[in-house]
Amino acid sequence: MAITIAVDCMGGDHGPAVTVPAVFDFLRRERDCSVILIGREEALRAPILAASAEFGIIECRDRFHLHHAGEVVGMDEPVASALRNKKDSSMRVMANLVKDGSAQAGLSAGNTGALMAISRFVLKTLPGIDRPAIAGILPTSTGHIYVLDLGANVDCQPEHLQQFGIMGALLVSALEHHERPSVGLLNIGEEAIKGNDVVKRAAELLKDSDLNFHGNVEGTDIWKGATDVVVCDGFVGNVLLKSSEGLAQMISGGLKEEFSRNILTKMAALAALPVIRAFKRRFDHRSYNGAGLLGLKGIVFKSHGSADAFAFRCALQRAAEAARERLPEKIAARMALTRNTVAHSSPATMQPAAPSVEQVLAA
Amino acid sequence: MAITIAVDCMGGDHGPAVTVPAVFDFLRRERDCSVILIGREEALRAPILAASAEFGIIECRDRFHLHHAGEVVGMDEPVASALRNKKDSSMRVMANLVKDGSAQAGLSAGNTGALMAISRFVLKTLPGIDRPAIAGILPTSTGHIYVLDLGANVDCQPEHLQQFGIMGALLVSALEHHERPSVGLLNIGEEAIKGNDVVKRAAELLKDSDLNFHGNVEGTDIWKGATDVVVCDGFVGNVLLKSSEGLAQMISGGLKEEFSRNILTKMAALAALPVIRAFKRRFDHRSYNGAGLLGLKGIVFKSHGSADAFAFRCALQRAAEAARERLPEKIAARMALTRNTVAHSSPATMQPAAPSVEQVLAA
Repeated sequence: MAITIAVDCMGGDHGPAVTVPAVFDFLRRERDCSVILIGREEALRAPILAASAEFGIIECRDRFHLHHAGEVVGMDEPVASALRNKKDSSMRVMANLVKDGSAQAGLSAGNTGALMAISRFVLKTLPGIDRPAIAGILPTSTGHIYVLDLGANVDCQPEHLQQFGIMGALLVSALEHHERPSVGLLNIGEEAIKGNDVVKRAAELLKDSDLNFHGNVEGTDIWKGATDVVVCDGFVGNVLLKSSEGLAQMISGGLKEEFSRNILTKMAALAALPVIRAFKRRFDHRSYNGAGLLGLKGIVFKSHGSADAFAFRCALQRAAEAARERLPEKIAARMALTRNTVAHSSPATMQPAAPSVEQVLAA
Repeated sequence: MAITIAVDCMGGDHGPAVTVPAVFDFLRRERDCSVILIGREEALRAPILAASAEFGIIECRDRFHLHHAGEVVGMDEPVASALRNKKDSSMRVMANLVKDGSAQAGLSAGNTGALMAISRFVLKTLPGIDRPAIAGILPTSTGHIYVLDLGANVDCQPEHLQQFGIMGALLVSALEHHERPSVGLLNIGEEAIKGNDVVKRAAELLKDSDLNFHGNVEGTDIWKGATDVVVCDGFVGNVLLKSSEGLAQMISGGLKEEFSRNILTKMAALAALPVIRAFKRRFDHRSYNGAGLLGLKGIVFKSHGSADAFAFRCALQRAAEAARERLPEKIAARMALTRNTVAHSSPATMQPAAPSVEQVLAA
């Protein structure tokens, strides 16, 4: 199946300077794919010319289209303003193109909160899914691991965590072609008695589902790759993600400082360089770029704001693979089955959903 | 003031082989301190002889006492069993000695859950404190930072987070002699609108207190040392702590693997060794060992279970400093002031406290 990806070229810390070359590198590699480049025409023209010189644009000239969008959502712009006032933002146009079927997936490196709110508003949530979630990938000592939710839902009920488990497992199946990925529940102790009430009840729901549920995992287990998927609420997931980024930066910055202290340490750095490079290749976070916004009636991926062209291309490939595997259809089919089962569970445990996008707009 | 520390010598992964030499190293350095070594006499005798040979026991022979305790709480033993069945455990005896004033502080490297439950049962909670919390120290790129709660309270109300902020600030004042330490609230975005309801309300309470409240901090900010104290609930704090440990282990293990891959990389490792050592000294987690159990009518510190003698001695020094500064008295005095202020706050926002130790025992 031919896949078209709608790309918000304006988002991220570097905008078109990164997104456009990444698109052409992607097109050269994925011959079944087309891309709609979305953004201000005047901002995209020069990077497209530069990329065409670099990647030889002729072979893929029929596989990209420029779609002008006059506005850009700022990286720190409040969600409500992005949603209410910027109907012609590159992000909004991207979501519209996914919605109307012009594209099978969308990608943006822009403001995460705005991307989730716009995607949810335009595409709507799949039946059976109460809350869309953001699923990202972290490197582990044995490979990598999918973690969700990374920040879309700060207050979760057990049923939401169960839904995250189902969506995460289907994402791994789609991207890794892995039949029955194992799912862990992030907790603060492996024993079933530990953790708060939401997590305890979520463990029961996950155990009762037909997932390959591994049970509780602790913070240390994530980096050992104890499971294929780890489920947690968005507050915990976001703290986990950001504190890990911060710690990795601190370690790498500290090593750099020690290696550049004097002439002797600089010579040591020269000797160690090939080893450090091999290490960096192995745990290269750029190759894990591309977080899926799961639970929507359409595929939207989020690139890290600071992504370079290599990282952005990795996210494009993930979005294309999710489209090839028709991920939303698979989640919808799976949720239809689950709803028949969980219809018996006590409605008293369900709490009112988070404020909807409509409520945010009305606020 | 002469300080006596009650030390549970049986806890931790290594028991007396680590705790006893650490005690004598501590005694040699801190001339105003005495130690009560608690544990099975037959298990302590040999390490005491060995340490006396190493550290020259004569000069401190009047400053240590052996206190026999026949039982030991297992590292994975359920909390209820440790509390109910082991009245003569080294951990319980330690808490009793703090309670009856024989010691001004206690230290254990044993099972954290059991240590908190036993300390809370024996010592009781200070007036004005709903929930004792565990405050630990993490290295940052600019120094170090105190984080609480690290796992004692998995479901917190805004008032608890405010109390953690107050106790954390007083701990930093006591240990670092820092007049007005800055306090940050761990959140998933710096803007006040982000985060869940508990965190939003906690931010208001912290702002209204007379603390040096910095506002929200994110996961990345912790490692930059954005504040002196970071406050979060115990679930989030425990995930933060354990995932950071896991990530640091993964990075260090991955570097070791790359450096020992072949003869060339091993030669590079030799060249880089002094730099790696300097780096390790700088971020040596062992020097940050010793987490305070705050909010009790007495001082109890927790050493990491895997601590070596150097790390255990650091924890002993922290406990001694907290005793010199009469930390519980200061917390009690500060809470007496706060209670007068917060008595006006809506009681509807207060939720029932976590199950008490008595309830756990009755279960």
